[in-house]
Amino acid sequence: MEVKRAAALKAFATDKMTKVGLFETRRFFCDLYCFERGQAQKGHVHQGEDKVYFVLEGRGRFTVGKEEAELGAMEATLAPAGVTHGVVNDGPGRLVVLVFMAPHPGPKG
Amino acid sequence: MEVKRAAALKAFATDKMTKVGLFETRRFFCDLYCFERGQAQKGHVHQGEDKVYFVLEGRGRFTVGKEEAELGAMEATLAPAGVTHGVVNDGPGRLVVLVFMAPHPGPKG
Repeated sequence: MEVKRAAALKAFATDKMTKVGLFETRRFFCDLYCFERGQAQKGHVHQGEDKVYFVLEGRGRFTVGKEEAELGAMEATLAPAGVTHGVVNDGPGRLVVLVFMAPHPGPKG
Repeated sequence: MEVKRAAALKAFATDKMTKVGLFETRRFFCDLYCFERGQAQKGHVHQGEDKVYFVLEGRGRFTVGKEEAELGAMEATLAPAGVTHGVVNDGPGRLVVLVFMAPHPGPKG
């Protein structure tokens, strides 16, 4: 069985936020997104996939459509297909977010 | 935007484990599973859906197919479609697990 330990797998880079894959099937993927202070995932949209952002550590500002929320550990939001969404780590430290997306958007081009 | 706070939403019952829905779309659902000490989700199988178990609090024993693992906070496993899986809270306290399943299995009968 596949076991993943997020505390050991989280990884950060100085130039941009880091995506660490935990699980991937043809039906979804589940990643850790790791942000140093000030790093962001710019606003973007998926036409056919829904995404959950679940904060594991730190605090960040999440945008979904025209709304924003500051979320900390154990707080989550949903970015439905067709709605622009993004994240900025404007908190005082590192931000680690568990991300689920389904269906799997398919191989990267 | 939908915001869910898991720390406030987690809920326990004396008779059996509790499922608390966080997000549900036609593509997936995302729940909290809350186990008092000794409670379990019995082994079962989904023919067409993959599931992630991500432990938020406590410790439990997870079974996927013929394998078992003791997982604690920030540890996760995958139960692929067609593979029997279950959870027992044999840890010293409460167990809270974030569960993600896709595709959505559809309305309960």
